[in-house]
Amino acid sequence: MAKITPRSQDFNQWYLDVLKEADMFDYGPVGGTIIAKPYGWTLYENMKDALDKRFKDTGHVNAQFPMFIPMSFLRREQSHVEGFSPELAVVTIGGGEELAEPIVVRPTSETIIGDAYSRWINSYRDLPVLINLWNSVVRWEKRTKPFLRTMEFYWQEGHTAHATHEESWAEVMQMLDVYHAHGVEDCAMPSVKGRKSKNERFAGAINTTSIEAMMGDKRALQAGTSHDLGQNFAKAFNIKFLDKDNTEKLCWTTSWGLSWRFMGGLIMVHGDDQGLRLPPKIAPIQAVIVPIHKNDDEKTKVMEAADRVFAELKAAGIRVKMDDRDATPGFKFNDWEMRGVPARIEIGPKDVANSSVALARRDVAGKAGKSFVPQAGLADRLKTLFVEIHESLHKQAAEFLNSNIREVNTLDELKEAVQDGWALAPLVDDPAVDAKLKEMQVTNRNYPFGQAAGE
Amino acid sequence: MAKITPRSQDFNQWYLDVLKEADMFDYGPVGGTIIAKPYGWTLYENMKDALDKRFKDTGHVNAQFPMFIPMSFLRREQSHVEGFSPELAVVTIGGGEELAEPIVVRPTSETIIGDAYSRWINSYRDLPVLINLWNSVVRWEKRTKPFLRTMEFYWQEGHTAHATHEESWAEVMQMLDVYHAHGVEDCAMPSVKGRKSKNERFAGAINTTSIEAMMGDKRALQAGTSHDLGQNFAKAFNIKFLDKDNTEKLCWTTSWGLSWRFMGGLIMVHGDDQGLRLPPKIAPIQAVIVPIHKNDDEKTKVMEAADRVFAELKAAGIRVKMDDRDATPGFKFNDWEMRGVPARIEIGPKDVANSSVALARRDVAGKAGKSFVPQAGLADRLKTLFVEIHESLHKQAAEFLNSNIREVNTLDELKEAVQDGWALAPLVDDPAVDAKLKEMQVTNRNYPFGQAAGE
Repeated sequence: MAKITPRSQDFNQWYLDVLKEADMFDYGPVGGTIIAKPYGWTLYENMKDALDKRFKDTGHVNAQFPMFIPMSFLRREQSHVEGFSPELAVVTIGGGEELAEPIVVRPTSETIIGDAYSRWINSYRDLPVLINLWNSVVRWEKRTKPFLRTMEFYWQEGHTAHATHEESWAEVMQMLDVYHAHGVEDCAMPSVKGRKSKNERFAGAINTTSIEAMMGDKRALQAGTSHDLGQNFAKAFNIKFLDKDNTEKLCWTTSWGLSWRFMGGLIMVHGDDQGLRLPPKIAPIQAVIVPIHKNDDEKTKVMEAADRVFAELKAAGIRVKMDDRDATPGFKFNDWEMRGVPARIEIGPKDVANSSVALARRDVAGKAGKSFVPQAGLADRLKTLFVEIHESLHKQAAEFLNSNIREVNTLDELKEAVQDGWALAPLVDDPAVDAKLKEMQVTNRNYPFGQAAGE
Repeated sequence: MAKITPRSQDFNQWYLDVLKEADMFDYGPVGGTIIAKPYGWTLYENMKDALDKRFKDTGHVNAQFPMFIPMSFLRREQSHVEGFSPELAVVTIGGGEELAEPIVVRPTSETIIGDAYSRWINSYRDLPVLINLWNSVVRWEKRTKPFLRTMEFYWQEGHTAHATHEESWAEVMQMLDVYHAHGVEDCAMPSVKGRKSKNERFAGAINTTSIEAMMGDKRALQAGTSHDLGQNFAKAFNIKFLDKDNTEKLCWTTSWGLSWRFMGGLIMVHGDDQGLRLPPKIAPIQAVIVPIHKNDDEKTKVMEAADRVFAELKAAGIRVKMDDRDATPGFKFNDWEMRGVPARIEIGPKDVANSSVALARRDVAGKAGKSFVPQAGLADRLKTLFVEIHESLHKQAAEFLNSNIREVNTLDELKEAVQDGWALAPLVDDPAVDAKLKEMQVTNRNYPFGQAAGE
């Protein structure tokens, strides 16, 4: 078992060590790209399924758009093309021939969606349009930090069109709430909902909102964004509808996105010096069984019990793994702690004799996290434990977040506060303020909703 | 309601008409690309979920690889680069600068996978590697036929590595069986499993197997392929392992793929002149409720019953839709028949008085497909009906397939047989034979397993 760098020593290196040891990723051959290995990708798929359910519960449907967008589309919305031009991957050769018009690999899909919606929307009866896409997008980037900064990244992008600004703004806020709830309820990750500064708006938006989460090194991570696009893209792409009053009007559109960066975030929120700690709802493996035996006789008895327990847990819908590798229990314990499996079940000869198992929970270190429980009813015990682990992880993260935000009223106080945490400051929303903060090496994350200085 | 072209008149136009009227796709702005609209994409997602479950049940895991592959990777396997070169989309500009080495948008992932496996596999303990990817790939193509022929298409590609050829061949055959079972059990679509001719092998494979399905116009569709790559990619990418006998050996690899073309296939297998007929297991909407009322008093009573039925069916896990649009029942009936919804539930004042509903099944036309059933126990009745519809669709398709294959022994017989169906012929597997067939405008689909002439 390779040693991982302690978080307190080098948080960035800790993150890379953990991802590598937990076998979550590898680098791709083109600089900036990564491979999501099965353990990393399964974690993403579980997050995706949980979030997708929330989208469907709020009336959204999935569709799929081409990854190729004509360069000319991007030019139609001025601030959009200015924002994305430096980041584009451009296809100039297709089928062995130079293309007449270069094609862009989508950096985001507002333009190609705008073009389609202009054809699909004719009447107020066609509204609202509530579509989500699960895909990957490309933004040229050679500095790689797995899942957090990659040239190609997986995400979802929602794109909606509405008859009024009141409705589209309600959608922006609803989806920010969905992201926040996904964090808290699926990933045990708290965050602060707020409005981005004018300076930090999405290219083409009239308002951008975000959730900001606090990582284990007290730095902020923008974990999801929801944009009010006003009528900018409707104007650029001519998305109009005939309203009930028989007049033609421009639509109001929104877009909102959450990427696999969210996964990087929850790793940095929950992980400790032993490795990952994964919330049970999205963990690829929720419980691992480690059989312990010294000779063939013990092995026969232990494996009989272990196989039975495995079958019972699997039948109960628990994502359970049997670790019957030829390795020491100590190696296995470390390995599964590294991978953040919420519950470990040890079965040895004594446990067989007592019809019990040793149950260790990942969120509580050492002996305090270990107990002996009967084999009978283990599936129910685990389901209860998973709820407890989720709540405990969320509580730890929420306390960490709340105890590291300080309200400040002067620039000096702000400067001091951000040396070791976040500051909640009454700032005017002006690009000059963001520039001043940048000089101080401070970033303006968002204006929290409900905060006096916000809105 | 637009009229669709009868199948007997122009099968190709019928297909396009149905997809358009059922609102499944739109054309993308770059020639060759399409947009999968929500109804089309949801059908694909349902197929995907059903197939993914089969992959997991056979021990496979999902991962995700970058869409960008260095051009040099493709050149490492000679027949692979020859096969794919004419079809590539090439990125030459990234982040505003000309790239030193051009990047290819993946046409398939054998090369980037081979490179990764050479790093990941060291010992016999690491084998087998059983990984699947759900993604989209690009093969330059400007002639578009939605879901059947598109420049970018969605699919899955499985990539496995094994210690022996016996094992890798067993994997090839297992995955062909999985595809066949997905067809029969999830999509009610029968197909013929067999080995492709040498001439039709995947670029870089030593053997390619396929399932071939018969469309409504008696033409064949290659619905899925499973490839024995031998040690070709292992040699090209140096995928080696230290075996139990302490010697270094090359791996044996496979790949297998099934795309959204399968969806085009099941549409062409089951559809009729009224539109789609979708198998209940994968239908986006399994049952639609059409309330029928002439005045406000009737509406109140009917909607009370319709809402109750809707809630009961939804609670029972049925994908049910309430059609309360402001349109005539006749319009709605046609619309949902076009979209292939397996069951339609009509509720009018008489049905309310009788505590019954009128239940129409899509697979049986006219009055014969309609019955009056009690509201009580409707969910269970529907679940039974869905099984019946699945079996009836499969039976019709299997009878059509079997009755349109003729065993032949001479070229003259073959020529006559393929005027109106398929021929089962004892052909030698030689590229010269394929060429001769091509002259006769006949394609060699596969050598069915179990057929005397094959294998």
